[in-house]
Amino acid sequence: MKRNDDAEKMNASKTRQKETVSTRRFVKKSRHINIDSLYTELRAGSRTALARAITLIESVRPEDERSAAKLLQNVLPHTGKSVRLGVSGVPGAGKSTFIETFGHMLCENGHRVAVLAIDPSSTLSGGSILGDKTRMEKLTRHERAFIRPSPSSGTLGGVHRKTRETILLCEAAGYDVIIVETVGVGQSETAVRNMVDFFMLLVLTGAGDDLQGMKKGIMEMVDLLIVHKADGDNFERAKRTVHKYRRLYHFLQRATPDWETQVAAVSSLDGKGHAEVWDTIETFQLQMKANEFWEERRREQLRTWFHEMIVHKLYDRFFHDPEKKGLVDSLEESVVSGDLAVGEAVQRLFNST
Amino acid sequence: MKRNDDAEKMNASKTRQKETVSTRRFVKKSRHINIDSLYTELRAGSRTALARAITLIESVRPEDERSAAKLLQNVLPHTGKSVRLGVSGVPGAGKSTFIETFGHMLCENGHRVAVLAIDPSSTLSGGSILGDKTRMEKLTRHERAFIRPSPSSGTLGGVHRKTRETILLCEAAGYDVIIVETVGVGQSETAVRNMVDFFMLLVLTGAGDDLQGMKKGIMEMVDLLIVHKADGDNFERAKRTVHKYRRLYHFLQRATPDWETQVAAVSSLDGKGHAEVWDTIETFQLQMKANEFWEERRREQLRTWFHEMIVHKLYDRFFHDPEKKGLVDSLEESVVSGDLAVGEAVQRLFNST
Repeated sequence: MKRNDDAEKMNASKTRQKETVSTRRFVKKSRHINIDSLYTELRAGSRTALARAITLIESVRPEDERSAAKLLQNVLPHTGKSVRLGVSGVPGAGKSTFIETFGHMLCENGHRVAVLAIDPSSTLSGGSILGDKTRMEKLTRHERAFIRPSPSSGTLGGVHRKTRETILLCEAAGYDVIIVETVGVGQSETAVRNMVDFFMLLVLTGAGDDLQGMKKGIMEMVDLLIVHKADGDNFERAKRTVHKYRRLYHFLQRATPDWETQVAAVSSLDGKGHAEVWDTIETFQLQMKANEFWEERRREQLRTWFHEMIVHKLYDRFFHDPEKKGLVDSLEESVVSGDLAVGEAVQRLFNST
Repeated sequence: MKRNDDAEKMNASKTRQKETVSTRRFVKKSRHINIDSLYTELRAGSRTALARAITLIESVRPEDERSAAKLLQNVLPHTGKSVRLGVSGVPGAGKSTFIETFGHMLCENGHRVAVLAIDPSSTLSGGSILGDKTRMEKLTRHERAFIRPSPSSGTLGGVHRKTRETILLCEAAGYDVIIVETVGVGQSETAVRNMVDFFMLLVLTGAGDDLQGMKKGIMEMVDLLIVHKADGDNFERAKRTVHKYRRLYHFLQRATPDWETQVAAVSSLDGKGHAEVWDTIETFQLQMKANEFWEERRREQLRTWFHEMIVHKLYDRFFHDPEKKGLVDSLEESVVSGDLAVGEAVQRLFNST
C-alpha cells in the first residue's frame, strides 16, 4: 500500500511536470490546439487536459477565446452534476487546513474533489507572503483531487473572471465536489455566493471575532457557519461560540429559503466535525432538490453571469473602437486637468455617440 | 464652556432632525430643488445643505442626475484642497474607535473632518449587527465633523458608487480632512486606495493576524500601517509586532514612490499615537507635493474614475435599449435552460448588433 502511494506520488509529480511543460508549449502554439482531442481527454478525466483547458479559457487572445467558447459549448451537457461549495473566512481562520482535511476525507470516500483557490487581494504583485507554496500539499498529491490556484490578475470582485467556466470544466472532467475558496469580508463573498450551491464561513472564537465585527450581510449569505480550531483548550469556548451564533441566527435572514443556517464546531487539527459537515451538505442537497430550489438558484446564477459578461463585452468593445478613442482622450484631458467634472465628461461622451 | 457644548449638542440634534425632514421632503419634490441656492448654502458650510447635496448625487432619477451633474460642475473649482485618507482593517481591528479618537483630535486642532463610512458587505440587508447606531457618537456631535454612513445599496467594489462625488462635495463645504473608512481584506481596499492620497491599515497583534494571513497585495497599498490596541498588557507585544512589520516592509513594494511605508503603534483607549499619525500624514503631504507625486496620483485617479463611469453608462444604456431587450431575453432563456453556454450567448448577442 505504501509502495503504491509512493508510486502514485511520483506519477502525480511527473504529471505535474508534464503539465507545466505542455502548458508552456501551449501558450506559444495555441493556434494548433485541437479542441476535439482536448475535449476527449478532458472527458476521460485527464488532469493534464483539464489544466490545459483552464489555461485556454483564461487566455485573452481572440483565437483562444473562440476555441474556449467552442469547448465550453461542447462540455455543457456534461456539467452541473457536482455540488458546488463556497468556503470563506477571515485570514487566519484556517481555510486551507480545513479544505485540505475535508477534501482529503471526501477523496478517500470516493469523491473527486476540485479546489479553486482564490487570492483576491493580490492586485499589486500577487500572492500571500508566506506559505502558499506548501498549501494543501497532502491534498495536492491525492489522485482524486485537482487544485487550481487563481492567477494574480484578472480578478473581478475578488474572484477570477473565469472561475465559473473553470467549475464547468472540472465537472465535465468528472469532479463531483467543487470547492471555491475565497478570503476577506466583502465583495468576493458575494461573487462566490453567486456561483455556488452551498456557502460555508469559517470563524474563530476570541479576539477580533466578536459578533460586533461580523457583518450582517456576510452572515446572511451562509448556509453553514463553522467555528474552526475547536481543539484542545479551545473546545469549550468554541462550543459556547456555536450556541451564541445559533441564537443570533434566529434573528437573521436565511441565505437559502427553507434552510435554517447551521452552526458547527470543527477541528482540522483533531480531524473532528468534517463528516458532520458533509452530512449537512448532503441533507441540504436532498431538501433543496426536493423543493426545487437547487435548480432555481442555479438558473438565477446563470442569469447573473450572463449579464455580467455582457458588461465586460460592452467595455471591451467600447474602448477598442478607434472612432471613440480620440474623443475619450480629449475629454480625459479636461477631466485630469480639473476643468471638467467626471460626470459631465461622461455625459458629453455619450451625447455625441 | 459646558453650557455652550450642551447648546451646541442641542443645535446639532435639531440640525439632524431637520436634515431628516428636509431629506424626506426632497425625495418627494426633488424637481423643485434650486441648485444655485443649494450651492450657496453648501459653500457657506451648512451641514444640512451638504447632506441634501449628497442625497441628490446618490439619487438615480434622471432629473436628479442632471441637477447633480450641474452641482458637481459648479463646485469643481472649490475641490481638491483637502487631504483624503483611507482607513482599512479586518473586523475587530477598531477602525471606528480609531477614527473617532483621531477625528476628534483633528477637530479640536481646528480641522474640519468628514468621515465617509463604507459598509461593503451589506449586500443582503445592510448594516452591522450591533453597535452601528452608536458608532462615533462623540465625533458625530462635534460641530467641525460631518459623518455620512453609506447606504446599504449601490456599492461598487465595496465602495458606494458616489463616494468620489461625496468627497468633492465635502471639500466644497470646507472640510479639509476626508476619511474614507472601509472594511475587509480585498477588493474594497483597491477601490478606496484609488480615491485617497494616503492609505492606513489597522492590524492587531496576536491570533489571526500573523503575517501569514496578511496578503501582500493589501500590504503594498499601505502608506502607514497602524498596530492598534497597543494598550496595557498588549503594549510590549504591539512594539514587537511593529518591528516585525518594519523588517517585512524592506522586502515589499512601496505604495507611494519615494515613501517608505511607516509602521506605528497606536492606542485609542489611552489616546496614544494619534498626534504622531497626523505628523506622518503632514510629512507625507509635504514630500509628495514637493516631488509632485501628489498631483500625479490625483490625475491618475481621475483617469480611472472617468473610465469606470463610462463602463456604468455603457451598461445602463445597453439594458435600456428596447430593441436589444427582446434578443437579450430570448438568449437568457436558452442560457438558463442549459442549452447555450453563457459565452456563446454573449457572442451571438454582440454579433447581431
